[in-house]
Amino acid sequence: MSDLLPVELRCVVCDQAHPSTVDAHVCPRHEGLAGILDVVVSPGQPGAGEDPLDRYRTHLPLPAAPRVLPAGYLSRTPLLPAPRLAALLGVGELLIKDESRHPTGSLKDRSSALAVELAAYGGFGDIACASTGNAASSLAGACAVAGLTARIFVPVGTPAGKLAQLAAFGARVVLVRGSYDDAYYLCEDAARAFGWYDRNCAVNPYLMEGKKTCGLELAEQLRDGPADWVSVAVGDGCTVAAIGKGLAEGGHGASRLLAVQPAGAAPIVDAFAAGREEIEPVHARTVADSVSVGRPRNAVKALRAVRASGGAFSAVDDAEILEAMRLLGEHAGVFAEPGAAAGIAAIRQARADGLIGPRDRVVHVVTGSGLKTPGAVTAPFPEIEPTLDAVRAVVAA
Amino acid sequence: MSDLLPVELRCVVCDQAHPSTVDAHVCPRHEGLAGILDVVVSPGQPGAGEDPLDRYRTHLPLPAAPRVLPAGYLSRTPLLPAPRLAALLGVGELLIKDESRHPTGSLKDRSSALAVELAAYGGFGDIACASTGNAASSLAGACAVAGLTARIFVPVGTPAGKLAQLAAFGARVVLVRGSYDDAYYLCEDAARAFGWYDRNCAVNPYLMEGKKTCGLELAEQLRDGPADWVSVAVGDGCTVAAIGKGLAEGGHGASRLLAVQPAGAAPIVDAFAAGREEIEPVHARTVADSVSVGRPRNAVKALRAVRASGGAFSAVDDAEILEAMRLLGEHAGVFAEPGAAAGIAAIRQARADGLIGPRDRVVHVVTGSGLKTPGAVTAPFPEIEPTLDAVRAVVAA
Repeated sequence: MSDLLPVELRCVVCDQAHPSTVDAHVCPRHEGLAGILDVVVSPGQPGAGEDPLDRYRTHLPLPAAPRVLPAGYLSRTPLLPAPRLAALLGVGELLIKDESRHPTGSLKDRSSALAVELAAYGGFGDIACASTGNAASSLAGACAVAGLTARIFVPVGTPAGKLAQLAAFGARVVLVRGSYDDAYYLCEDAARAFGWYDRNCAVNPYLMEGKKTCGLELAEQLRDGPADWVSVAVGDGCTVAAIGKGLAEGGHGASRLLAVQPAGAAPIVDAFAAGREEIEPVHARTVADSVSVGRPRNAVKALRAVRASGGAFSAVDDAEILEAMRLLGEHAGVFAEPGAAAGIAAIRQARADGLIGPRDRVVHVVTGSGLKTPGAVTAPFPEIEPTLDAVRAVVAA
Repeated sequence: MSDLLPVELRCVVCDQAHPSTVDAHVCPRHEGLAGILDVVVSPGQPGAGEDPLDRYRTHLPLPAAPRVLPAGYLSRTPLLPAPRLAALLGVGELLIKDESRHPTGSLKDRSSALAVELAAYGGFGDIACASTGNAASSLAGACAVAGLTARIFVPVGTPAGKLAQLAAFGARVVLVRGSYDDAYYLCEDAARAFGWYDRNCAVNPYLMEGKKTCGLELAEQLRDGPADWVSVAVGDGCTVAAIGKGLAEGGHGASRLLAVQPAGAAPIVDAFAAGREEIEPVHARTVADSVSVGRPRNAVKALRAVRASGGAFSAVDDAEILEAMRLLGEHAGVFAEPGAAAGIAAIRQARADGLIGPRDRVVHVVTGSGLKTPGAVTAPFPEIEPTLDAVRAVVAA
């Protein structure tokens, strides 16, 4: 029996074809992790059902074997109009793709579910992942469903909500004294040394395909008319590239990608502005922990996807990100983590710059739940005695 | 034009009919809040679509007016098999109804969405709610979507995750120095005094109908075969009564309800054991904040629903609840808040007592996300230097 997955793999640097084994990594012709592989598929029409791994099966590197996660573990996330926030931002229409509805509260559930399917098919019992938090908690959750062991590498300082999820799911976690980048390279080494399946999205070519289902859903949900812009935050670069790929495969090539990084972790923004494909690593510092990446591993795919869409990269500072969180919560009823709100700040900026027009239809992807980082909002509520007079005083104030 | 809602209202004590105005409350013939009204509907078949307020429109007290929340704000939650946890508990099949997937992470989103529709129809600009947390955050979220003002009364000591949600959604919150019960009665008084719409599920007869959609979905999802038991945690009593009602209206009368309260807040368990409808209030003390209710307002409906189903009430202590959280997380991949895990402890107990049989099909309803109370899990993870030797030491340990 062949254990190749039903897709083609090609190096993004030299276009060399590689066999689609379940543990394919990077092209060995290039130094380090530069030779990222791209997955090429020949998809059919979407299937029935709401679980994206079933619905978009012919778009995905999935074997014919039965799946290990139950159908419905993932489901389609809603695309919801936010007319009051659209009016505040001065755009014609704003639609929120709410990825916080996933089982562990982030878009990363899409790729972690795929990782678990591939690892189980490949006979692996352990899956390794370095993460600023969301990839880790999503992997831990999917592993707990399937009965696999999650091996997690997170930097010291990961938010409490994300660590609580890891503990709840029984993941094997190490807190690495260093940055996300340190945790990342250590995880790569450990996965090789111990024979664990590698869930890291930048070097495992298949994982981005899981995230791609967000774009495929959008393409179906936007059948009533194309979006002019799709805004999403960028850390390593996989998510924006995946959404662009999904939109294109779904026949929705019209949308321009608005890719945003926090000003304190914006190396891909800099490369975009300079017209380069190589990035200059920075020392990441931002409140948006989910995209606090100083040395992005997938800048190439991100830059190509945004350029191919005719889109733009922009940087927003932490104050703008926190204000965007407030706007999303108060005027659209979506509690996003800081990174997941950054795109709202970018839309505001692009509108002010004239890049986005007053009648444009804009999609913003909320990539993760604000419940994971409750410390990012303050709750200065008045404490009162249980009397009506005390209520009256607060209402009058 | 008539502004009556298309349902009948009847007092649970004296069966007196009442006009179905949008702000109907309790039957004035009885002291205090005793005369709770019940909603009687003449439903048709479920409609198309996944949003329960659309799908089950003929089961609900909704006016013919257009809805203010977008379709898809609510969606059907999955019912997922958990075979490894079933084996651990010694039951034939365990299915998890995961209500943490809702927009603010709890089952309460179902009734808060309905409250917002009714308040908007009635011309109210403010909606009031007392809550241990989930009802409040769900109301705050739905109000932010619709542009209404949420007036929230929570006891001092409400978990940080829930307060952060309230802050994010821009709710007007007071922290009441006292118990949930104190916050509850203060909210009732304030709603009357200030003319706010009353979202409290025990006295607003319509709100339970929102929760009922959980049971209606279950009835559809269980078409391949009835469940022997449906387990769910109980605070005020509305949720279990609503699920029972939804199952019955959905033509799925076969399931017995397993209603669980924390041992430190178990007044309805006591009334059930004594064969009474009246409860003796207790001083609630439990880690399960979402069901920490010493003076339940809807014991009558809860007791009747459980008895009508041939079901049972049981109490589990805090240690069993925390162990149930761990089991759900590690063996089913669901991170539940403590109250939302209590039913797993009750299943274990009922299995040990022989009430649940070894081949029984059991549904457990996870009513809210563990991300709201991350402090309930500890994360004692090892901190290491970024070296492979350090990883090796941890793996070997």
